[in-house]
This record gives sequence, C-alpha cells and structure tokens, in this order.
Amino acid sequence: MTEEKKDENEMTEEKKNENVVFIGKKGVMGYVLAVVTQFNNGMSEVILKARGKLISRAVDVAEITKNRFLTGVTIKDIQIKTEELTSEDGSLSKVSAIEITLAK
Amino acid sequence: MTEEKKDENEMTEEKKNENVVFIGKKGVMGYVLAVVTQFNNGMSEVILKARGKLISRAVDVAEITKNRFLTGVTIKDIQIKTEELTSEDGSLSKVSAIEITLAK
Repeated sequence: MTEEKKDENEMTEEKKNENVVFIGKKGVMGYVLAVVTQFNNGMSEVILKARGKLISRAVDVAEITKNRFLTGVTIKDIQIKTEELTSEDGSLSKVSAIEITLAK
Repeated sequence: MTEEKKDENEMTEEKKNENVVFIGKKGVMGYVLAVVTQFNNGMSEVILKARGKLISRAVDVAEITKNRFLTGVTIKDIQIKTEELTSEDGSLSKVSAIEITLAK
C-alpha cells in the first residue's frame, strides 16, 4: 500500500519543469528523449532527479544519453540526499534521492 | 535466465577487498555494518560499489551510514559508469554502475 502511494507521488512529479527531468515509472528511453529534447531546446544543463528504486534508472538515463546520443555531454555533478515523505495517513518515511547534472 | 546469471556474478563479487564494499542482494543494514566496521578498523575512506538495480541500495547505504551511524563521514565523490558483462553464452550486456566514496 505504501509502495503504491509512493508510485503515485512519483507519477505526479513526472511533469517536467525548466531543465529538470523527474525519473518515474516509464521506460528508460522516454527519459533519454526528454533529456535530448531539453538540450536541443538550448539548455546548457539538464538535471535528472529520482528517488528510491528509480535511482538506478536515473543512472541508466545519464549513461545512455552521454554514451549513445549526446557524446559532447558530460556528467557535471552528482548529489545524493535523504528526503522525507509524508504519506496520506500522516506517517513519515525517508527515501534516498539522487540529482545528476548533465552539461554540454 | 540472464537475470539469474547476473545475480551470481554479484554474489561472487560480494567478498570485500581492502576498503571496498560491493553491494549485493543482502539487506541494507548488513552493508551499513560493513562500512562502519571498515572505518572502525582505521580506514579513512570506504568505497561502495554497485551495479544495475542495486545502485539505489548503495545510495541507501551511504545515506544511512552518514546520517545515522557515522555523522563525521562525508560523501567525498560519486562516479557513475557503464560496465560490460559477458554472460556464459558469450553475449555482451551493458550495465550501469556507481562508486560512492565515503571519507571521514
């Protein structure tokens, strides 16, 4: 149940704002395309954000973008942190998060 | 089938050499304990290594160690890369990997 709630949170955060790409439950290539589009729209930096089990998908997106699609792009910075989520019943849970900054 | 082979690889690499802790299928707290033990044995740096879906567990281990057990420890460096694995039938598969360096 808690798992399902988390999923919903991630889905609502999947909308992109500015140069941030939130990693959700979609396939890896969808996020790679989102990153490529951001760079093609003139962004010099794109930040990938992911939480929990989706962290590994963010790393996949960064690596595939860098190695296969935009070879001029480098990984500028990687930050990890712990975020606190409040579920609907008011209970607090902690989840790891990552932010990967890609730059060209 | 491929999934199972990968698991075996990860299991054999789970043995610790020097100041490296390979993240495998065990619970998070087991790896936190391994990191704490390394620092208590006099290491000034401990490197967490993980591949594929286990990347998110490595981030959990780093965050829990830093926030709950060794508050003097900081995240010194995070590297991500792509590794090539050869399975038993000779086919090549690529997998993302992470290395998190903790230092006190």
